[in-house]
Amino acid sequence: MDCIFCKIIAGEIPANKVFEDEKVVAFMDIFPSTVGHLLLVPKKHFKDMLEADDETLSVIAVHVPKIARAAMAATGATGFNVGINTGAAAGQVVMHLHWHIMPRYENDGLQFWKPIEQTPEELTTMAEKIRSAI
Amino acid sequence: MDCIFCKIIAGEIPANKVFEDEKVVAFMDIFPSTVGHLLLVPKKHFKDMLEADDETLSVIAVHVPKIARAAMAATGATGFNVGINTGAAAGQVVMHLHWHIMPRYENDGLQFWKPIEQTPEELTTMAEKIRSAI
Repeated sequence: MDCIFCKIIAGEIPANKVFEDEKVVAFMDIFPSTVGHLLLVPKKHFKDMLEADDETLSVIAVHVPKIARAAMAATGATGFNVGINTGAAAGQVVMHLHWHIMPRYENDGLQFWKPIEQTPEELTTMAEKIRSAI
Repeated sequence: MDCIFCKIIAGEIPANKVFEDEKVVAFMDIFPSTVGHLLLVPKKHFKDMLEADDETLSVIAVHVPKIARAAMAATGATGFNVGINTGAAAGQVVMHLHWHIMPRYENDGLQFWKPIEQTPEELTTMAEKIRSAI
């Protein structure tokens, strides 16, 4: 499979790995959004969260605090963001499930998401639609 | 405990709930960043990912595809972002663990994170620091 993360996992392409065990690998994002920006990736190939099995989702989730705590200790960050993009519309570029871990710093001035305008009625209508779809 | 999400879970404060089971609840974010923006919240109170137990992290993670798939079906979104903010420096406002699920639309023009400048040498040095801290 022509997947860059599979090649990193296989050691065919170099990466700045910070952690590796049987199930996951974590390495520096080469296009960081904050200092210390890491990717946490399951070794098993899944395109995204919608395709991943429950075990993989669980394994990744429980690894986050371990990796994030180390990133905070190493950088002096006092918080971190986790981001997971599913689908090209959401900014997913590499089609192998990966979780972004981005250390954050006091008053670093970043704002990742901005509010949009929605009325309470619009929210209620949308909730009904989503509820019906579950 | 004076926690707004605990009050929503207890039914003491209204919310536009879209899903609820024994462990989690999902409801509309009242300050949405995209149309259909949801919060997925464990019923057990944890401040953040660093404090949460593994079971809670796993339960939340495996619920994401279910909730996100419904949000996409209801909105016509073709992707979604998951965001988890840990600590005030990362933009966490409510100190009860919650995962943002934000449906995304073709060419919606949003860009949540922007790249910063980092040299390959800076990335390698940072990787060594983080690796040593794990």
